Amino acid sequence: RRRGTVFLKRCFVFCLVEQLVDEILKLNEDPKIHGLVLDLPIGALSGRVINSVTPEKDVDGITDVNLGRLIRGDLSECFVPPAASAVLQLLDQADVLTVGKKVLIIGATGSLEAALQALLKKKGMITISSQWLSKNLKELVRAKLILSQISEPGLNSLKFKLFVSLSSRWITNQQRKRWDVRALKLQPLSPVPSDIEISRAQTPKAIEVLAKEIGLLAGEIESFGRNKAKVKLSLLERLKEHPDGKYVLVAGITPTPLGEGKSTVTVGLVQALGAHLGINSFACVRQPSQGPTFGVKGGAAGGGYAQVIPMEEFNLHLTGDIHAITAANNLLAAAIDARILHEATQSDKALYNRLVPTINGVRQFSPIQLARLKRLRVDKSDPSTLTPGEVSNFVRLDIDPSTITWQRVVDTNDRFLRKITIGQSSTEKGFIREAQFDIAVASEIMAILALTDGLADMNKRLGNIVVANNRKGQPVTAEDLGVSGALAVLMKDAIKPTLMQTLEGTPVFVHAGPFANIAHGNSSVLADKMALKLVGEQGFVVTEAGFGADIGMEKFFNIKCRASGLYPNVVVLVATIRALKMHGGGPNVTAGKPLTKEYTEENLKLVADGCSNLQKQIQIAHLFGMPVIVAINVFKSDTEAEIDLVCQIAKHSGAYDAVSCNHWAAGGRGTVQLAEAVERAANEKSTLSFLYDLKLPIVEKIRTIAQKVYGAKDIELSPEAQSKVDLYVKQGFGDLPICMAKTHLSLSHQPERKGVPTGFILPIRDVRASIGAGFIYPLVGTMSTMPGLPTRPCFYDIDLDSDTEQITGLF
Amino acid sequence: RRRGTVFLKRCFVFCLVEQLVDEILKLNEDPKIHGLVLDLPIGALSGRVINSVTPEKDVDGITDVNLGRLIRGDLSECFVPPAASAVLQLLDQADVLTVGKKVLIIGATGSLEAALQALLKKKGMITISSQWLSKNLKELVRAKLILSQISEPGLNSLKFKLFVSLSSRWITNQQRKRWDVRALKLQPLSPVPSDIEISRAQTPKAIEVLAKEIGLLAGEIESFGRNKAKVKLSLLERLKEHPDGKYVLVAGITPTPLGEGKSTVTVGLVQALGAHLGINSFACVRQPSQGPTFGVKGGAAGGGYAQVIPMEEFNLHLTGDIHAITAANNLLAAAIDARILHEATQSDKALYNRLVPTINGVRQFSPIQLARLKRLRVDKSDPSTLTPGEVSNFVRLDIDPSTITWQRVVDTNDRFLRKITIGQSSTEKGFIREAQFDIAVASEIMAILALTDGLADMNKRLGNIVVANNRKGQPVTAEDLGVSGALAVLMKDAIKPTLMQTLEGTPVFVHAGPFANIAHGNSSVLADKMALKLVGEQGFVVTEAGFGADIGMEKFFNIKCRASGLYPNVVVLVATIRALKMHGGGPNVTAGKPLTKEYTEENLKLVADGCSNLQKQIQIAHLFGMPVIVAINVFKSDTEAEIDLVCQIAKHSGAYDAVSCNHWAAGGRGTVQLAEAVERAANEKSTLSFLYDLKLPIVEKIRTIAQKVYGAKDIELSPEAQSKVDLYVKQGFGDLPICMAKTHLSLSHQPERKGVPTGFILPIRDVRASIGAGFIYPLVGTMSTMPGLPTRPCFYDIDLDSDTEQITGLF
Repeated sequence: RRRGTVFLKRCFVFCLVEQLVDEILKLNEDPKIHGLVLDLPIGALSGRVINSVTPEKDVDGITDVNLGRLIRGDLSECFVPPAASAVLQLLDQADVLTVGKKVLIIGATGSLEAALQALLKKKGMITISSQWLSKNLKELVRAKLILSQISEPGLNSLKFKLFVSLSSRWITNQQRKRWDVRALKLQPLSPVPSDIEISRAQTPKAIEVLAKEIGLLAGEIESFGRNKAKVKLSLLERLKEHPDGKYVLVAGITPTPLGEGKSTVTVGLVQALGAHLGINSFACVRQPSQGPTFGVKGGAAGGGYAQVIPMEEFNLHLTGDIHAITAANNLLAAAIDARILHEATQSDKALYNRLVPTINGVRQFSPIQLARLKRLRVDKSDPSTLTPGEVSNFVRLDIDPSTITWQRVVDTNDRFLRKITIGQSSTEKGFIREAQFDIAVASEIMAILALTDGLADMNKRLGNIVVANNRKGQPVTAEDLGVSGALAVLMKDAIKPTLMQTLEGTPVFVHAGPFANIAHGNSSVLADKMALKLVGEQGFVVTEAGFGADIGMEKFFNIKCRASGLYPNVVVLVATIRALKMHGGGPNVTAGKPLTKEYTEENLKLVADGCSNLQKQIQIAHLFGMPVIVAINVFKSDTEAEIDLVCQIAKHSGAYDAVSCNHWAAGGRGTVQLAEAVERAANEKSTLSFLYDLKLPIVEKIRTIAQKVYGAKDIELSPEAQSKVDLYVKQGFGDLPICMAKTHLSLSHQPERKGVPTGFILPIRDVRASIGAGFIYPLVGTMSTMPGLPTRPCFYDIDLDSDTEQITGLF
Repeated sequence: RRRGTVFLKRCFVFCLVEQLVDEILKLNEDPKIHGLVLDLPIGALSGRVINSVTPEKDVDGITDVNLGRLIRGDLSECFVPPAASAVLQLLDQADVLTVGKKVLIIGATGSLEAALQALLKKKGMITISSQWLSKNLKELVRAKLILSQISEPGLNSLKFKLFVSLSSRWITNQQRKRWDVRALKLQPLSPVPSDIEISRAQTPKAIEVLAKEIGLLAGEIESFGRNKAKVKLSLLERLKEHPDGKYVLVAGITPTPLGEGKSTVTVGLVQALGAHLGINSFACVRQPSQGPTFGVKGGAAGGGYAQVIPMEEFNLHLTGDIHAITAANNLLAAAIDARILHEATQSDKALYNRLVPTINGVRQFSPIQLARLKRLRVDKSDPSTLTPGEVSNFVRLDIDPSTITWQRVVDTNDRFLRKITIGQSSTEKGFIREAQFDIAVASEIMAILALTDGLADMNKRLGNIVVANNRKGQPVTAEDLGVSGALAVLMKDAIKPTLMQTLEGTPVFVHAGPFANIAHGNSSVLADKMALKLVGEQGFVVTEAGFGADIGMEKFFNIKCRASGLYPNVVVLVATIRALKMHGGGPNVTAGKPLTKEYTEENLKLVADGCSNLQKQIQIAHLFGMPVIVAINVFKSDTEAEIDLVCQIAKHSGAYDAVSCNHWAAGGRGTVQLAEAVERAANEKSTLSFLYDLKLPIVEKIRTIAQKVYGAKDIELSPEAQSKVDLYVKQGFGDLPICMAKTHLSLSHQPERKGVPTGFILPIRDVRASIGAGFIYPLVGTMSTMPGLPTRPCFYDIDLDSDTEQITGLF
């Protein structure tokens, strides 16, 4: 091992010197580079390198004398880090810095680096932190990179060495490489302990370490404690020329109410790819609501030996994104009611005086108000010139309270807020109305977060949110309320995906978690995009779609992929013997009740019959042109014969492959076979085809999904639904994609109809719209947007040990 | 400067060698230390040091040969950092590590350090990160600390050097020193730009840098992005033997509705102490609600050139503490209503079966349920042995809905939630009731956060929260609902104070922000305690009490100091010429309206008359035995004669000193005079005396405050208030301190009575209790716990630039 190390080192130094001299000679010729300073590991600072800088461009005058000192280890004279202020002063005067485009600072750390970054930014330059690079250099040469800030005796000023332009080539090369991710070792126990015990038994890598391993620069992450970091969107700009990796979607067959383990398969699959096959791979998963964590379901970080860790941080506040959504959602809600009250109790003039006040003798519109004037087609910027009619139009949103669709949210299972009356205090002067609270993840802002591709787009979507109609039937938006800028400010950090890791130390993005019925149930476009760049061309990004493939996958393609422009390579379809038996006619499966013996004993007939649902879901994936790998999430009571039967039927039904997965008990090692199948399938050619053209009428789009995906005979719209469709078309929203709000427990709208129901007419009870997010959502039946607490919620078991700070009872 | 550096270095090396040899010789004799490995800066690794280790204890065998190589700078052989895994293996086998109590790892960084920490922790050892120490070493010698992991040619294994036990002495010495805090330079502009412009023009130090400057160890902080970090409570354990610094309270005279600048004085004072006088100093301030940020008031990070930066991070989500409070508060609220519903719709038996279910054939109580049984005096742990009566008592909290005092919260100004009806969905089976939402910072959990002294105490307080009475008139607590553990889990990160910095780069703790009327209006006990240890004996901690001194300061002493056991040294009493003129009979001052000429022109008579209020507030501070410095927060229109007059009257009224402050326009430089006065006063002897004995009857305690502090003739309790007092006494809560909920705009209960009102009878409308927080709060008049949005809220001006990610319009 040591020989290898030394070899590496020599090899590196040799290469670097050649490359470096080459680079310096080029820079000598470059008229745009006025000077050159070097900051290199000592091994690279040979006379040859130093002398290759032409005298005109030599701004630091490093000489053989200093170099000799350095090499002799005469440390007392050489290793004098300059005071940050002196360096700054020097840089401030140096012309060299205003011409290059990218400046790499090697060797400056901490406050100095921060100050340098700030200074260079002020000069309009892009800076790249050295930390990632120096770390990699260090590891390559197995030698410490030594600061080369050198003082020259006889001179009063300190000189600082920068290594210009080699940086971008270096970083590019690094990015295309296989990561050097240190896998965390697993020693699975049997029986498998509880999720929190497994999570706690593993010590995650410090998140900065993981970030460096996967090629993130130090300036691109914002740590949130030791185990989480937000990753800046600037990454997308830096890597925009890089090719994307392979993109894998994990979907499922129609599940039992217990869930069939898509999240664990997602995590297990990347553990296998990353920690066992050594392939760059990323999981992109949803952030769970805290409601279920304390209510019925428990955590959502995966399970067993396929988890995102630390699971308690994943399941609790994370980096505050859902809290930010709650704050933004509720600010908008408060603005609506307050505005109605203020309009109802004030004259046009009083409203105008308050909305556009005179401050220190000056009266002017705010930018948000100017935007509203523009929408009202009033081309004026002087508040004193508006006609009374224009003033009235400007100050009155004239919201029709009966059309308000914007609800307040909390991230708590609070059933008593499902239907409430608000405004009953006398201070609200009788403006009472019925309203409701939804769970926070049901907010349209969550769907916006999941679908946006950047800050500018998010700002636009937030402004576009339609909260109600005015009395003329026109939509009233968040921008009309003047609150869209504040919403963007509240969401400015939430837009950055959160980096965490699996139990085996491979990277995970956690970002956004919209409802899978009234919204599209997929994690964020941004996380997927960033992960695809980071893994590189040969790497894999695995993401998950909520509910069964008929819902989550359909929306993944028709809504998320349309928004992102990304096309996946493979669909992994998760099935369990349990769910297949249910579809084959097994007794009801209910949460909290023990499974009957049909489920705990071998029953090949039920399995075979239930594969109809699997077959149908495979066909649905094929509608979109995707190869399908069936992943059987194995439980202890499943028999080999049952598993073999499913694999056989799956392949017969057109699946590219079908394999069993044992990640829950064994971690990534239990999913290697799946990972290998996915890798093979990803090399097949696939072409995504959307199911419908956006230009089709809304009703046609709904019918297409119902017939082609669900297998319905037809659809039937209630009069209310039809009139909503007409309204949305009139308001100009007819070309949006469709987001069906249907039960996930059946392909049909009736949860009790298992297998592959046919001949049914899908009833469309109502149609709603999330204009900011950008979809129309037809309601098939009643969708609860606020879960309740059961008699004995999870929280009975949850506790905190105040000595160890450890959490118990989360699962 | 360089000469000093060189001198320092030699001096250091000399001292260290002596100290080191001394230490090694001691360790040689210590039978509990089985081996010794060294990891030191190269300058300290002399033959003398190396040879002082006895052969029996020499576990790494460092020889002069290697040392020679090191000193000759023969780097290719010497600087080979060992692979982390090899080191870990070595450590895992090393007996030496299982015996010492503290192990300092010098030279191991990043993933290796994390792994080492984890391993040592597993072995039950306390570890101290090297980063802080090595940083300080580095700065002392102005030379880079070089890794001393040395490979020995001829041996296959790598040896790792640890320097045992010297660490604690080192750290102790460091902690007692003056910090080496790099002040951020200010160049104040005139006219003073907006707060956000000032904040944005300054580049804060990376928070890790500040943390190291003030003696925090790397393992003691959890960064939240670049500019904020949570500080772990373990700090208190590490520094428990250290003396506290001086403790300064900033309070104010009775303010105008515009506020008189206590926050800016607080920040300006620490800027002066820290950045101008070079004294270790910390500001401890409250986290503001987001409601006002988007509503009327704007931000709360100070103002002008005395701010906490970045002000937008301070004013928005910060590190999520208020969001955590919201989540915990609302989980408890949801649990109450859900429990009432479940009890009302199920038999004892059904409830019992659900609350204590049989899982995999086993039926057992959770720890929280066992605690409830104990409170019910049922000494059983087997669920099958409870009598029907015991079952009924156990399963039925029997909450009387009319007595519920626990309200839901949002951190938004949402006036329509002031009075609402909940439970109107048919799923709640008619269990509707009237309720309300408060602003999040009004939650009792915020008051608990502010008063707790650690995790165990917080858990206890959360469990003690009384949410309602049962139908027998007994209190029902969060612990009875089984939710106290979950609340603690939600609050486990919020309990750690957040480190930020002032505009001049000195440290600030932001932690907790309870209401100043229904709660005690002071930032957290924990932040103060931690800051007092960090600044050291000669340092200063400045904190602020909400509202005027009659309210905030009175509660600071009688509630916060009682809880913390900390005694302050000085009170700074903030006054403005504006407020004094108002008290002297000037016209009303109203937010949003221009000031009349009495306020913009010199008027010595109004000032002199208004000093009655100042005098009274000084007397109130003297009641508690504190020396008072009057700080006049100067505005542009104040004249020298006015300021001189106030100083004169203040000193005549017993103030230790009175000075004018110009921090808003000039930063810390404008508050140096105040800082010097505070430093002098802190050296005076002062003894805190509480105003009342907790054993006094509740009514007597209220009367004492009303008469001695407010100057009331007497108090008068409504029948409702009296019956509440009787109830609380009966419930055993009679010995709690009193937290008056009174207007801050007058010493009396009538906001319009300025100056020093006399002869009034203070009416006590109602009395409530925050049992978890630990106080009784009498209501004097109506207290709004939910602000509203005005016609033109602040959010009209707030926007986000999606290119630069900069926020505009916050102030």
